[in-house]
Amino acid sequence: MKARGDRLSAAGMLTELAAIGEDPQGGITRFLYDPAWRQAQQAVARMMREAGLAVSIDAVGNVYGKLEGTDREAPSIVTGSHIDTVKCGGRYDGALGIAAGIAALAKLKRSSGQPRRTLEVVSFCEEEGSRFPLAYWGSGNVTGCKLFDGSLDAVDAQGISLREAMAGAGYKPAAHRASRRTNIAAFVELHIEQGEVLEREQRQIGIVDAIYGQRRYFVDIAGRSGHAGTTPMPLRADALAAAANMIVWLRKAALEAGDGLVATVGKLEVSPGIPNVIPGNVRYSLDIRHRDEAVIEAFCAEAFQTFAAMAEKHRVTVQQTCWLSEPPSPPMDAGLKERLARICEASGYSHMPIGSGAGHDAGLFARTCRTAMIFVPSRDGISHSPLEYTAPEDIERGADVLTKLLYQLAYELAERV
Amino acid sequence: MKARGDRLSAAGMLTELAAIGEDPQGGITRFLYDPAWRQAQQAVARMMREAGLAVSIDAVGNVYGKLEGTDREAPSIVTGSHIDTVKCGGRYDGALGIAAGIAALAKLKRSSGQPRRTLEVVSFCEEEGSRFPLAYWGSGNVTGCKLFDGSLDAVDAQGISLREAMAGAGYKPAAHRASRRTNIAAFVELHIEQGEVLEREQRQIGIVDAIYGQRRYFVDIAGRSGHAGTTPMPLRADALAAAANMIVWLRKAALEAGDGLVATVGKLEVSPGIPNVIPGNVRYSLDIRHRDEAVIEAFCAEAFQTFAAMAEKHRVTVQQTCWLSEPPSPPMDAGLKERLARICEASGYSHMPIGSGAGHDAGLFARTCRTAMIFVPSRDGISHSPLEYTAPEDIERGADVLTKLLYQLAYELAERV
Repeated sequence: MKARGDRLSAAGMLTELAAIGEDPQGGITRFLYDPAWRQAQQAVARMMREAGLAVSIDAVGNVYGKLEGTDREAPSIVTGSHIDTVKCGGRYDGALGIAAGIAALAKLKRSSGQPRRTLEVVSFCEEEGSRFPLAYWGSGNVTGCKLFDGSLDAVDAQGISLREAMAGAGYKPAAHRASRRTNIAAFVELHIEQGEVLEREQRQIGIVDAIYGQRRYFVDIAGRSGHAGTTPMPLRADALAAAANMIVWLRKAALEAGDGLVATVGKLEVSPGIPNVIPGNVRYSLDIRHRDEAVIEAFCAEAFQTFAAMAEKHRVTVQQTCWLSEPPSPPMDAGLKERLARICEASGYSHMPIGSGAGHDAGLFARTCRTAMIFVPSRDGISHSPLEYTAPEDIERGADVLTKLLYQLAYELAERV
Repeated sequence: MKARGDRLSAAGMLTELAAIGEDPQGGITRFLYDPAWRQAQQAVARMMREAGLAVSIDAVGNVYGKLEGTDREAPSIVTGSHIDTVKCGGRYDGALGIAAGIAALAKLKRSSGQPRRTLEVVSFCEEEGSRFPLAYWGSGNVTGCKLFDGSLDAVDAQGISLREAMAGAGYKPAAHRASRRTNIAAFVELHIEQGEVLEREQRQIGIVDAIYGQRRYFVDIAGRSGHAGTTPMPLRADALAAAANMIVWLRKAALEAGDGLVATVGKLEVSPGIPNVIPGNVRYSLDIRHRDEAVIEAFCAEAFQTFAAMAEKHRVTVQQTCWLSEPPSPPMDAGLKERLARICEASGYSHMPIGSGAGHDAGLFARTCRTAMIFVPSRDGISHSPLEYTAPEDIERGADVLTKLLYQLAYELAERV
């Protein structure tokens, strides 16, 4: 019995899932509908069955495990996360929420029997956007928040369309809208933080209050290249010097703005990029995130006004192109956050409210039902990397908080949430 | 006679040389010892012969045209420049000094007969360092300023060694030191400015006072990459933000230093270079030039001290590696500069003293004999490009000043310079 118990612990299931899709370059690669993905969803379905749950797979490949409630009319209480990974990703991102969800339902069934409200755990087929130029293929279809118009023709790096990939995995491409659900009362997601705030603040549980919106731009600067030896400093129109001024300003302005705003220049290309030639052109990426769309808007407006003035001073031109704009999620449910805080206190777990700069399935559910999200620490804040690590005790605490919240929502609450 | 006169004008010879080594990608490519180079040196030899000069070719392929003086014991007055180009270079860089030198000697022979001092024009085989990882193969061997230890084994991009390339062009590799000359009294080089100082200052002639020294470094910054969404600004160790601060400081410090100091960051690479990942590592190139080695030394010392402090503030590490260090040339000869200024005034040409941020053959001669260098304007300061352009009037004025100085040195001066 012990062996079986271990295998159905969150940690045991995580270990099993981590062995599926091991990448020769390190870490785990499970892309939507690829062989490793199929193997992983089959393993999840088996784990759900072993946990005593009724398994079903929807039109896009989301796998559900259900523990039916006595009130069969009431919409479900759902937990879960995504099974796909980035290229060479870690073993916790996504998988933790699935494994802990199965473990929670297994434990609740064992200890408390049939719930009043139906409890479900879901393994979403896709969230990362790693294979095709779209993301949230799982929760986007389930919530109906993403229409995915024309997405079936999107192609991966090998030129395979989503349509072909679906068909190859045994799904009917045209049927993807059938995966939409309207009978979900609440969604709760356990996930690793993927940052280092909990670690720095020495808190064991993060209670997410909002999932940030983000904008991504390319900023193009055009100056004039020239001979590094023969062009005096005052006569230069150095695109990189101008870009450096902007990057310094961005960091300073983001630090001063505080309140969780982040601004990142992650990619920068210099042309011609030769040591003894003054850079004529620079293109850099700009990623801005905050929980409040108005704050993002105001920050970008100030940045671009500042950039224009800097460009004039440097005798270069500047132009920015927005290529991604994701609005912030609605706030997480206040009642659920309050319950989570009380559960942590009763359990002796230190906790704090936290914003999520990364996108999550819970962000989409927050638009359609009461939603909560629980973070556990990521060592050194590392994620999307084979080095991703969350300690077993943190996994246990996260799974415990999740189980207790699901118990309250499905077993205790008289009224429907 | 007109046709022949035109052909032996500086402009006529430049046009002929520009047709040798035309690159399919634009501009001119003549690499040391390649077919275009051989064709060009043969054309130069023919032009010299047509100008009535005695032609000789030395052990490394420098081509000389000589107009023997009555004082056959006295060391020569030499003018010239280099025949090789950068990849897709312009028609003036190097070639102008050769063409104008041949034209000057032709004109002096025609108008004034045999000089007292022997006059020579030289077409140096190599200066740019375009083919092999070495430069000044022409003037370096002639002056003996460069020992080229082990250089014969240097290989080009195709894996061909300098030794093989020499042999292929009909030269004896081991004999390269035989090209050394010790009987040169003065060297005068006419060259395009390759910058925009003359154009901006609206002067027709630049009288070079010094050829700058230069140092080149790679600066490596190591921070910590992280998720752009989940890492709060105060917790970041962003290598690019640190680099940007350094680049802003470099520009400001170089502008404040003034006095011709130039500092350039021409190449910058970000790792991992992904829009939503905080840069963990940055490597950038740093090119510092000034006429005074002590100024370069002091500037670099201050820069690296400043970088260390910035790195600490940004929680990154910084390390710089010097990969090129060329000391400044000795000052150009004061007497020759004074002669050039008087020639310009007598001829009604506006002029100014000017430093050269680019290296030149004259910089090596300045270590061994009295040396002067004359600049003519480059349109928009553009060089090392098919767009390189100097107006015919500017070429005429430069050639005229060169001719008049050579006349004074070879015909008028009683004492040996």
